[in-house]
Amino acid sequence: EVDCETYEPWVVTYINDAFMSRQMILPPTGSLCLFRSMDPGKVKNVKFFRELQAMSDDDTCKLIIKGFRCDGELLPVEDRPRKIEFIGDSITSGEGTYGATPDEDWISMYMGISRNYAKMTADALNAEFRLVSAGGWGVLTGWDNNPKNNIPSVYEMVAGISKGKAPSELGATKAHDFSTWQPDVCVINLGTNDDTSFNQPAFTDPVTGKVTGHKLNADGSYNEENIAEFKEHVVDFLKVVRGHNPKAHIVWCYGMLGYRLSLSIADAINTYKKETGDVNVAFITLPNTTAETVGSHGHPGEKSHARAAKVLTEYLADIL
Amino acid sequence: EVDCETYEPWVVTYINDAFMSRQMILPPTGSLCLFRSMDPGKVKNVKFFRELQAMSDDDTCKLIIKGFRCDGELLPVEDRPRKIEFIGDSITSGEGTYGATPDEDWISMYMGISRNYAKMTADALNAEFRLVSAGGWGVLTGWDNNPKNNIPSVYEMVAGISKGKAPSELGATKAHDFSTWQPDVCVINLGTNDDTSFNQPAFTDPVTGKVTGHKLNADGSYNEENIAEFKEHVVDFLKVVRGHNPKAHIVWCYGMLGYRLSLSIADAINTYKKETGDVNVAFITLPNTTAETVGSHGHPGEKSHARAAKVLTEYLADIL
Amino acid sequence: EVDCETYEPWVVTYINDAFMSRQMILPPTGSLCLFRSMDPGKVKNVKFFRELQAMSDDDTCKLIIKGFRCDGELLPVEDRPRKIEFIGDSITSGEGTYGATPDEDWISMYMGISRNYAKMTADALNAEFRLVSAGGWGVLTGWDNNPKNNIPSVYEMVAGISKGKAPSELGATKAHDFSTWQPDVCVINLGTNDDTSFNQPAFTDPVTGKVTGHKLNADGSYNEENIAEFKEHVVDFLKVVRGHNPKAHIVWCYGMLGYRLSLSIADAINTYKKETGDVNVAFITLPNTTAETVGSHGHPGEKSHARAAKVLTEYLADIL
Amino acid sequence: EVDCETYEPWVVTYINDAFMSRQMILPPTGSLCLFRSMDPGKVKNVKFFRELQAMSDDDTCKLIIKGFRCDGELLPVEDRPRKIEFIGDSITSGEGTYGATPDEDWISMYMGISRNYAKMTADALNAEFRLVSAGGWGVLTGWDNNPKNNIPSVYEMVAGISKGKAPSELGATKAHDFSTWQPDVCVINLGTNDDTSFNQPAFTDPVTGKVTGHKLNADGSYNEENIAEFKEHVVDFLKVVRGHNPKAHIVWCYGMLGYRLSLSIADAINTYKKETGDVNVAFITLPNTTAETVGSHGHPGEKSHARAAKVLTEYLADIL
Repeated sequence: EVDCETYEPWVVTYINDAFMSRQMILPPTGSLCLFRSMDPGKVKNVKFFRELQAMSDDDTCKLIIKGFRCDGELLPVEDRPRKIEFIGDSITSGEGTYGATPDEDWISMYMGISRNYAKMTADALNAEFRLVSAGGWGVLTGWDNNPKNNIPSVYEMVAGISKGKAPSELGATKAHDFSTWQPDVCVINLGTNDDTSFNQPAFTDPVTGKVTGHKLNADGSYNEENIAEFKEHVVDFLKVVRGHNPKAHIVWCYGMLGYRLSLSIADAINTYKKETGDVNVAFITLPNTTAETVGSHGHPGEKSHARAAKVLTEYLADIL
Repeated sequence: EVDCETYEPWVVTYINDAFMSRQMILPPTGSLCLFRSMDPGKVKNVKFFRELQAMSDDDTCKLIIKGFRCDGELLPVEDRPRKIEFIGDSITSGEGTYGATPDEDWISMYMGISRNYAKMTADALNAEFRLVSAGGWGVLTGWDNNPKNNIPSVYEMVAGISKGKAPSELGATKAHDFSTWQPDVCVINLGTNDDTSFNQPAFTDPVTGKVTGHKLNADGSYNEENIAEFKEHVVDFLKVVRGHNPKAHIVWCYGMLGYRLSLSIADAINTYKKETGDVNVAFITLPNTTAETVGSHGHPGEKSHARAAKVLTEYLADIL
Repeated sequence: EVDCETYEPWVVTYINDAFMSRQMILPPTGSLCLFRSMDPGKVKNVKFFRELQAMSDDDTCKLIIKGFRCDGELLPVEDRPRKIEFIGDSITSGEGTYGATPDEDWISMYMGISRNYAKMTADALNAEFRLVSAGGWGVLTGWDNNPKNNIPSVYEMVAGISKGKAPSELGATKAHDFSTWQPDVCVINLGTNDDTSFNQPAFTDPVTGKVTGHKLNADGSYNEENIAEFKEHVVDFLKVVRGHNPKAHIVWCYGMLGYRLSLSIADAINTYKKETGDVNVAFITLPNTTAETVGSHGHPGEKSHARAAKVLTEYLADIL
Repeated sequence: EVDCETYEPWVVTYINDAFMSRQMILPPTGSLCLFRSMDPGKVKNVKFFRELQAMSDDDTCKLIIKGFRCDGELLPVEDRPRKIEFIGDSITSGEGTYGATPDEDWISMYMGISRNYAKMTADALNAEFRLVSAGGWGVLTGWDNNPKNNIPSVYEMVAGISKGKAPSELGATKAHDFSTWQPDVCVINLGTNDDTSFNQPAFTDPVTGKVTGHKLNADGSYNEENIAEFKEHVVDFLKVVRGHNPKAHIVWCYGMLGYRLSLSIADAINTYKKETGDVNVAFITLPNTTAETVGSHGHPGEKSHARAAKVLTEYLADIL
């Protein structure tokens, strides 16, 4: 069962860990053949992923799996030895990993987990993974200075990025029970949209008319008050993530679309460490995206994701 | 409109030359959304390919495009400056370019042009391309010694690999009018199944009971009579290809699944050259497939195709 | 004129920017043919580098160029548009970029600039470069807790790493006149030996008997007092570097042998920024060295240097 | 002990299979330190190669090793399980593997085995290897139509490429005793200079005044008489190589500087096979050199050698 207005879901399948299909799914309801004509005597491993992130701009967007039909039997899937949670923005939603480099449409089909550093890292480490990510969102504010588009405000919900009637009825805004799945590592890849907001006009709330926004100083440097507020939110969010994931190694990754807030993020992490005594948190920069590795819509392409995944995988292999 | 029994067609799309989707198409009839929600002010280039070769074992298999619907307008497509025709077997049908390495099913979803040396070569040279290929077929005989599965017998038809009632009614077995599309280059990549046949049991015709097949000598070398017959067919096929493509450079490529018949093919090409005085024909070996580059079902994987495409592209760039 | 006891100098030459020779130079005095039999009508660009860093453990080590002989004429060399200064330890001295992976000798021939991230970065940016580096040295202390082996103590000298009689007589310990060469960028790659010192026994001064050294806490975390002292030295060193290079972009790079002090270095840089208001300083992590990229003596190999150089080059290309 | 006029020898060393030095050796006599200051407790493997081929144009050129001095002991070297002989021209002498791409000097320092497909292949297969090669030489004729510069005329001598007084006195022109070293594989990489000769002016013997040379037909195709003579020499040379190496697999490789004589070589090999019944001989093309992989003096660069070595290694790994 599928619904959407503007942003249709895409799905991707893997048979025995090999990429097999990627396609658009349109409303209303249908069934999809994942494979056929294969040797019935052999066990197959089938992976079926939704490529598209939760869409905060399309409250109708949903993809519900009602069941599976097959002429064989479903066998239990082996547990993976590690679990990783990725918390991020459009980079972690894989925006730009599909589409030609000059293309600038903001559309579903250019996003996906299938060419994403998160999936690449998890696969390389044989880890189960989950994503909490929304394109354009930040720690403190969205890329357009919209203060509602911050990941901390939805992190504790089941899938709070979509807050409309339909997703709410399905339970998206309910409190998530973190005890059901405790990751070994939380990877936070946020800050890129907070950075962008400094170069955008102020945001006017369409309901209240309230105007908010970050400013650059006259010399082009970042307004210190804004940065201080950003750091506070980083510190607070680390406390929240730690609260729900008491044993996880937390690593903040940053840099795939520029290193400008590196020192501010590191400063906040240091403050968090001093305040809490928590030593199980780290910071690394991931290689920036270049003309050679960029994808569509000015976002990191598959090559940039592969490069970032390599650095992150190597880091985590040491930790785990 | 789609039909098939065992071998369902797969299709692949590209938007502005970037890979976008790959999916299975099942009977009977449906419509497929290729893209949506894109900027209406920009011209898009959309490519839509059938991934699957003509299936000689499934006479019902067909994919008919009844039309296109769009809310914009269809613009003329720019001509590519070069044209290449590829004539081959399963390698040229891209068998094994999808699927996990250990998988051995002989199924539609493991075949395709999207990861194929032919498409890679044509793209690199900005050339329009056509394929005439069938998995398991040879110049003289199929991999299983079935003498009917030879490409020369169908090369002059529109799409003669499928000979059943349905494709015949659609015109597949009619004579192809070569004057409508004259390539600059004919790439022939055949011989691999002729080679395999030497290691297979003889073939018994299910209708006539006639037994045919190639044999190895006691010392493991190839029976000279069989090889002589193979060479004759290579010479004859070159004459046919030249007849229909008087100006094309003909290059015979061989080696992606072993170099065993290299010298026999080269010998036949030399005979053809002597008999005809044609100097516009060449022979190159393509790098063999290794454990590192193999795909599913023991066939060349994407990496092997990429390597072959590089050698072939460089060769053709010099010629063209 | 060459002298040395244990650590003989090595040299490397490039003809028209192509690597040509690498060889050991032994005492006492000799002449070396850099090239011969070349077309006298063409201008050649010849680069001649000492591969070996200044050796603090071998006060006799020196390489003096007394002159050049040629049957042509020496032409002026074109200025490169950018200047970069690299300040570092064994990584910046290229230790381990030559030699087989299992080799553990601490010898001259395993060091060099020819496979070094500093040279690779400078070449990629078409920049002139200088190195101030010493294997085993840190910001606060050497890898073995020897407090004398800190780069800040020699940074303001001409070549103060070698302090013996011979180098002193040649002027190595004189104050360097920074006004003669002002870089566009100062790359500081220090902290790795300060980190190592935490896992080493305390150091006993051979003269005074004074014992110094860093300690881990019982839980394996770093002693906060030691870290505080390290940060102070980072802050102070940044002030010194800024004092002598008022217009340079300063970027601290860290991570090629582990990311453990990342947050401490970032904290110190933030302190420096707050104290001075200097915004022209940044921090990035370079990809860690792995089993796949390691060289001899447990140091980054050529592949690790190439990977680091790529990240640093891309970063600096944006800045410059 | 070294001597030379124009073409000085170069040498290269490897310590424990890692490249360490490459340098020019000048007359008259000297000693060279290969390594020092290493851990005396560990066995080292030291390889010392002359980089430069035998020089037919400089009869004085020689490099004689009079002995080794060391303060340890020389241990026996482990036998490699396979032996390969490479017979070739400038490609097999590694010409162009050093030097900048635009450089066109024909000098010693641009040649070498250290970046050569032959050494790369032998190393990858853990094989001992020997080279018989001379830049500019062919099967029938040199690149400049000089009929004396053909490898078959010297193949049976110890080192017959240099025929002057000095090398003759050292035994270079004596008959080689092939029984002392029987290879598992003979790789013949010849034909490139025979091909070049068709585009060069005829050669006038400086002593007899006799004029010889290959010609193109008016339409640019190769003169059939010349090709017939070339093929005869290929057949004859194969008989000679087989005569001295009765058990070796013989593979003729061709293509690194163009595929133009592929079919002619294959034709000659087929003739040889028919005449002798020998089935242990094969033909493969190696990937052509492109703008991306070319080295100095228009010859294959290190990248082209690496690519060829990969194809050849994979082929031989199957055979061996």
